[in-house]
Amino acid sequence: MSNMNKVGIVGHGITPFSKEDQKIESVLLDSAKELFRNNSEINRDEIDAVLVSTNNNSKYLSPILSEMAGIQPKIAHTIESLCNSGTNSIVSAYSYIASGLADMILVTGAERYDSPGQILEWDNSRGEYKHPVFWASIFSKSYKRKFSISDEQLAIVSVKNHKQAKENPNALSKKTYTIEEVVNSRKLTEDLRLLDCSRPCTGSASIILASEEKAIQVTDKPIWITGIGQKTTSAGFTKNSSFSSMESTKLAGQTALKMSNKNPIDVDVAEIHDAFSVCEPMALESLGFSAEGYGMKMIEELHNTNNFKINPRGGLIGSGHPLGATGIAQTIEITQQLQGNAGKRQVDKPKTGLVHNMSAAATSSTVLVLET
Amino acid sequence: MSNMNKVGIVGHGITPFSKEDQKIESVLLDSAKELFRNNSEINRDEIDAVLVSTNNNSKYLSPILSEMAGIQPKIAHTIESLCNSGTNSIVSAYSYIASGLADMILVTGAERYDSPGQILEWDNSRGEYKHPVFWASIFSKSYKRKFSISDEQLAIVSVKNHKQAKENPNALSKKTYTIEEVVNSRKLTEDLRLLDCSRPCTGSASIILASEEKAIQVTDKPIWITGIGQKTTSAGFTKNSSFSSMESTKLAGQTALKMSNKNPIDVDVAEIHDAFSVCEPMALESLGFSAEGYGMKMIEELHNTNNFKINPRGGLIGSGHPLGATGIAQTIEITQQLQGNAGKRQVDKPKTGLVHNMSAAATSSTVLVLET
Repeated sequence: MSNMNKVGIVGHGITPFSKEDQKIESVLLDSAKELFRNNSEINRDEIDAVLVSTNNNSKYLSPILSEMAGIQPKIAHTIESLCNSGTNSIVSAYSYIASGLADMILVTGAERYDSPGQILEWDNSRGEYKHPVFWASIFSKSYKRKFSISDEQLAIVSVKNHKQAKENPNALSKKTYTIEEVVNSRKLTEDLRLLDCSRPCTGSASIILASEEKAIQVTDKPIWITGIGQKTTSAGFTKNSSFSSMESTKLAGQTALKMSNKNPIDVDVAEIHDAFSVCEPMALESLGFSAEGYGMKMIEELHNTNNFKINPRGGLIGSGHPLGATGIAQTIEITQQLQGNAGKRQVDKPKTGLVHNMSAAATSSTVLVLET
Repeated sequence: MSNMNKVGIVGHGITPFSKEDQKIESVLLDSAKELFRNNSEINRDEIDAVLVSTNNNSKYLSPILSEMAGIQPKIAHTIESLCNSGTNSIVSAYSYIASGLADMILVTGAERYDSPGQILEWDNSRGEYKHPVFWASIFSKSYKRKFSISDEQLAIVSVKNHKQAKENPNALSKKTYTIEEVVNSRKLTEDLRLLDCSRPCTGSASIILASEEKAIQVTDKPIWITGIGQKTTSAGFTKNSSFSSMESTKLAGQTALKMSNKNPIDVDVAEIHDAFSVCEPMALESLGFSAEGYGMKMIEELHNTNNFKINPRGGLIGSGHPLGATGIAQTIEITQQLQGNAGKRQVDKPKTGLVHNMSAAATSSTVLVLET
């Protein structure tokens, strides 16, 4: 990797996540406008790629966003990989810069609350059980059985993340919940309650990546992407090698940490893809943050000490889950944390952060390591 | 660009273009299977990215294709930029390899005959004239008026490309036409006849890109991507600075030729995005292959001498236009030409080839330069 250009995050903008019925083009533009308001030193003429991350069916959204935002980029296209589209777009932007094809790139993720990509038509192995709640149920049952975790314990993920989301002005959720409220919320399946689930929503997040040379021209606080790991093990979740751990996350995490010469213990703050409660302990274990079966213990301790280290913005459960925007919103949160700009969510002087973003029952995962 | 890894094309597979009603997943798989049949020395375990190029609305197609093809890649996502999706995917693959994030990448483009992306809902400036035939009509009228070109002259593009498609076993068209048949074919608008138009179709094209180190392990005839140029000027075609030339093509062509240290005269064979007849002379002029207004003269001479230099496989008009597959099919044709494997379409010993792929009235363009 020694021949690569260094790539930094030099600006970001995000919208409140909501249930608003707004055209996708205008959702996209909202966070890009916010980005340019936050970063007046960034010159639109210097942006040579615009990547759009979305599951929306509209075509040619990158040229459309470019035209609306007053940018005439060289590279312009949409990237889709379900819930994992956002970090896929960031990695693609990274490679355009590291390869020398571009120096400054706008990556904008956006989704409408009624986005397609929530029902997985393609996975015939699932029969009629195509909705994500079905794999989440199997994961929950499998994880709870294997490690003797109670519903009340698992509910702490939701309690913690809703609590943390209260300090995130852009979060979809504005409420906090008790363990009892979570376990007594609407039963979706035998193993899943409504408050165990992230909710699709309308939202947008934009980020600017730049080469080292450009980065230091436009900000004195660039955040560097020092580790990247990605893995796709399958498309259909019934091919997963385990329902109580995440193989693609394990492999992506190892690759990303190795690239950045870090160990799990070096990570000060992390965004974890908690599409459902059970995903948080499973991912913590698969990433090596805790031993197998001890993810909930770690989460409980963090919750009891009011430590925002994991999912400071409230995770997907608290923030909402606008599919194509999620990975970018996660990356913005870690960027703000590392810059010391995370307000009431601020973790104590983090130097190294991690983003975990995945799709479709962790059949694919991306892990990013960010550093000051 | 001196720090970049060299990137080569090391394998390809393509399906016949047709009007078949086939699931997108199976269309995608068909050309990937053909690729692996053609290149038995390529080991699927060494493929670390799978990029899908399509306008199809189905999600997660790259992991689906990967699972069906027996690949567990690191990087897996879909890329969309309308008709220009194919070369956008090739450039993205190039950057993943050049940056060191991947060493060997499968890029598969596919489309169904009824693909979305043909009607441009987003361009409100066009009122009810949303179908591409309307911009093509304006281009045709504008070009014919400015350079005093007759309908009969313009028809030569279609006559030539249908003739050349007859030597392409995968082409949608199997017929040849006279100038009279073209000008007397069904009138779509005052300036456009049915035989001036490329037709959407079902089809798929796959290509494998590799780093220099991997490339020489799997083939003794790698074709190198030595020039890349891309430009997006707008999304809505009414913002075009001219209706008789292609600004984005001009800029993309200049960038690509400069990167490869070539001039237009060095190009021995080219694939040109003839979505409609008028696009071929306009693109030849914008790429610098002929002086402004002299594109048809060049085409006429090539046609009269039976020289297949421009659009040897029959262009989009003769081959058919499965949107997401087109740029990849174009690149395969130039690869075969440079390898001396183009059969009856073979141009005399070409060393340098060019691919021109564009979207939506040339509001965006990609140009690639390939060399032996």
